[in-house]
Amino acid sequence: MITPDDIERAAERIGARIRRTPVLEHGGVLLKLELLQHAGSFKPRGAFNRVLVEREIPTAGLIAASGGNHGAALAFVGMSLGLPVEIFLPVTSPAVKRANIERFGARVTAVDGYYDDAQAAAAIRQAESGALMVHPFDHPATVAGQGTMARELEQQVGAIDTLLVANGGGGFIAGQAAWYQSRIKVVSVEPESSQCLRAALTRGEPVDVPVGGVAADSLGARRLGEVPWSIVREHVAEAVTVTDDAIRAAQRELWTDLRLVVEPGGATAWAALREGAYRPRPGERVVVVVCGSNCDPATVV
Amino acid sequence: MITPDDIERAAERIGARIRRTPVLEHGGVLLKLELLQHAGSFKPRGAFNRVLVEREIPTAGLIAASGGNHGAALAFVGMSLGLPVEIFLPVTSPAVKRANIERFGARVTAVDGYYDDAQAAAAIRQAESGALMVHPFDHPATVAGQGTMARELEQQVGAIDTLLVANGGGGFIAGQAAWYQSRIKVVSVEPESSQCLRAALTRGEPVDVPVGGVAADSLGARRLGEVPWSIVREHVAEAVTVTDDAIRAAQRELWTDLRLVVEPGGATAWAALREGAYRPRPGERVVVVVCGSNCDPATVV
Repeated sequence: MITPDDIERAAERIGARIRRTPVLEHGGVLLKLELLQHAGSFKPRGAFNRVLVEREIPTAGLIAASGGNHGAALAFVGMSLGLPVEIFLPVTSPAVKRANIERFGARVTAVDGYYDDAQAAAAIRQAESGALMVHPFDHPATVAGQGTMARELEQQVGAIDTLLVANGGGGFIAGQAAWYQSRIKVVSVEPESSQCLRAALTRGEPVDVPVGGVAADSLGARRLGEVPWSIVREHVAEAVTVTDDAIRAAQRELWTDLRLVVEPGGATAWAALREGAYRPRPGERVVVVVCGSNCDPATVV
Repeated sequence: MITPDDIERAAERIGARIRRTPVLEHGGVLLKLELLQHAGSFKPRGAFNRVLVEREIPTAGLIAASGGNHGAALAFVGMSLGLPVEIFLPVTSPAVKRANIERFGARVTAVDGYYDDAQAAAAIRQAESGALMVHPFDHPATVAGQGTMARELEQQVGAIDTLLVANGGGGFIAGQAAWYQSRIKVVSVEPESSQCLRAALTRGEPVDVPVGGVAADSLGARRLGEVPWSIVREHVAEAVTVTDDAIRAAQRELWTDLRLVVEPGGATAWAALREGAYRPRPGERVVVVVCGSNCDPATVV
């Protein structure tokens, strides 16, 4: 189990290496603008904490497979700490995600196929190089690092009733739920086309699900992580889903009304409010996390 | 003269109609993200205050000529207050600016030529309709409304040494300078290709200047306003200029590092720091205003 104390320690550990992201009010709802985090998503919180808990890092540095956001975050961590980084990326990831990784100086290897294929290639390379494998979500230190967002949010806005969070492999929502420990309602939002958290709650354990849709490059995890699951099953109150059309409409609205460029996965939680997949009671104080912006800005209009 | 008291009253008047925009730290500098204001620029602050000081609004509503940002702001004001709005826009304005105005329900008339031609057409129409002409910058209530940004900023970040502000017709910088009253250094940043404030300081009075360049649609005022000049000459410490290339580079950096879509005029103040047109002393606490985002997001990459 990951406790609020673990998250306090993570916050001390990562300190000013991460950005304190702003909160904006829109239509009576608070938006936590975590898309303005370094490297364009929440991922550096977990990646910094995961790396900084190690006493010693191999000279080969850090290695990971990633759909893109974790790779950019780990590349940013490597640049900040002076460590070499190698990322295995499926060729199906958007070009902008590859560019995000390379501009932080990491070595990128493109792998035919999807995330699982990239993970297999990264594992083979890691056995040769001895680099530290940094999993995108299934590690307690990663989850505790992600939870620093909820701690920061509570400092910024005080008491809330509900937090809407998009879900991929579970690391991000588990971090938030570990901070709040059922003091508020943490709601998972997933695309209909990639819903491993909802499947885990329904079946009582993580199971493999089909993945696809417009947000697959950030939310398309085939199976909820075991570490996230230990928290999700206790502290995630509800799991809803949204259509790809609702995600696209949410992206357009976030651009038009708020001038935010939000990638599909980053707009997914907002889509649940817009579409009515989650309906707050009158007076319910809701925060929606807008969690990623790594896309071609031409695609949000 | 516009005083801090005028700005306090403007803040009470416009109240929650405008958004409290966030402040973000980047590379040791604070950025005031006024581009996240309603309608995509700081302009609704002044437009709301200008309209709300009137005891009665003609049934024909509001009318203005605009390069785009003032038009969108006035359309937003009209929509919020239930007033009809008519905007005269030069055909040289970007298509996205016309769309911004129309989505708030205003009637748009495109005029051949530049801003001056649109202003002439608007004046003829105003004489027929009797609508309230809302000038983009040259009115005390407009300047006092813009100054609410500085008041808000001081509440958010406390004492600062320097504020860098892009300049067009002078209304925005005059509002900030009227709030700070030389308690801090307010620095004007203009494109080399449109520098009516620098010309006014050099010549000792507003004069006509040539206008052009990448930021002309928001900063291309031919002459500093008389109302702004009354404050600028007392309380603007320094006026620097930047090249169009520096503005484009600033736009790219704001997207790449901060995930902000910033129009050329909105990126101009940041360009001055990047390019060294303004060089802070060690330890100087600088805030840069990022003041507009009304552009096609595909153009910032």
